[in-house]
Amino acid sequence: MALKEALAWRYATKKFDPSKKISQDTLDYILNTVQLAPSSYGLHHYRIIVVEDAAIRQQLKAAAYNQPQVTDASHLIVFAAETNINEEYVKRYVDQVAHIRNMERSALAGFEDMLLNKVSSLSAEESLVWAHKQAYIALGVLLAAASEVNVDSGPMEGFDPAKFDEILGLKELGLTTSVISAIGYRAEDDEYSKLPKVRKSASDLFIKI
Amino acid sequence: MALKEALAWRYATKKFDPSKKISQDTLDYILNTVQLAPSSYGLHHYRIIVVEDAAIRQQLKAAAYNQPQVTDASHLIVFAAETNINEEYVKRYVDQVAHIRNMERSALAGFEDMLLNKVSSLSAEESLVWAHKQAYIALGVLLAAASEVNVDSGPMEGFDPAKFDEILGLKELGLTTSVISAIGYRAEDDEYSKLPKVRKSASDLFIKI
Repeated sequence: MALKEALAWRYATKKFDPSKKISQDTLDYILNTVQLAPSSYGLHHYRIIVVEDAAIRQQLKAAAYNQPQVTDASHLIVFAAETNINEEYVKRYVDQVAHIRNMERSALAGFEDMLLNKVSSLSAEESLVWAHKQAYIALGVLLAAASEVNVDSGPMEGFDPAKFDEILGLKELGLTTSVISAIGYRAEDDEYSKLPKVRKSASDLFIKI
Repeated sequence: MALKEALAWRYATKKFDPSKKISQDTLDYILNTVQLAPSSYGLHHYRIIVVEDAAIRQQLKAAAYNQPQVTDASHLIVFAAETNINEEYVKRYVDQVAHIRNMERSALAGFEDMLLNKVSSLSAEESLVWAHKQAYIALGVLLAAASEVNVDSGPMEGFDPAKFDEILGLKELGLTTSVISAIGYRAEDDEYSKLPKVRKSASDLFIKI
């Protein structure tokens, strides 16, 4: 389905059909697409936790105002921002660039210096906001990719990040929860699926200069 | 083109062919798709400035480290976050929801109260970060939609937001620049187009639970 039609079809699904699971092929397609999402300087400032385990999701639900989609959707996708975008992180990234692009590492010295200057100029808070923003690009790509293959999605900001971090053991991995989305298939009686979409009109949204 | 292939094809274009313009139909497709990007509670916390004017772009380029793609690309897309997500903003939004969904406004009282509580609980800084994040969802959708129709894109964070706001007159509109992207067609000799894409590997990116 073309993306425009796919995004017109999608809506913030609140009620999923718990009996419908996303097939492995479809899930792989979505995740492989999200993997291609761009990020600032390519630093890929987050990891993505794909939660299927029922017991863990039960705990997460309690940390997300008991929203039923946390447990009822086929999968819960958790975007977790890297809390340590530091010198070591940059050096590992530049190693990876040199490896993938088959370049001498010395040829990347200018790029590396620029990145090191950038990351050392940011406070911990600024660095985290930067990482969260990149995770939101990936969220946009997730919602697009899922809808392209008729998978429903319900992104959520209403959860306790500290509890999510604890339940998922993210702190030890240098991560903190950014944003989450349930993905799966809408329940036939989800009343939200029938409501017309509300967006700013073109004249309210766009300014053409 | 399927989104996965489209995003594999795209790269952060640095050098655009200034002679190639995006057709009106193609631009409309991209913008109409971005218009459908979701946002937290549907508040659509940003506007999108589509800049084509050469003189304005010359000024913006000077405020973006003289990056040539600002002037050479077909269009420059500026995402601008709303700085006044306040009671008045919420009330206007709820008016719009009632209108589009043909509902009694009183039926939305609970939703409105929840939104009013939410926005009044945030500091100006928190509200702005929240708005920026939503703009990044739309950026993800823009990059996806453009690549789907073989339009190149080069998102940028390297610019002076205060100068952008001044040049574009955004402050008076209650907006501040969030992130920008050049869109258009790659120059044939853009060396970056030949480089293999660098992303975290699936095992580095995904954690499956």
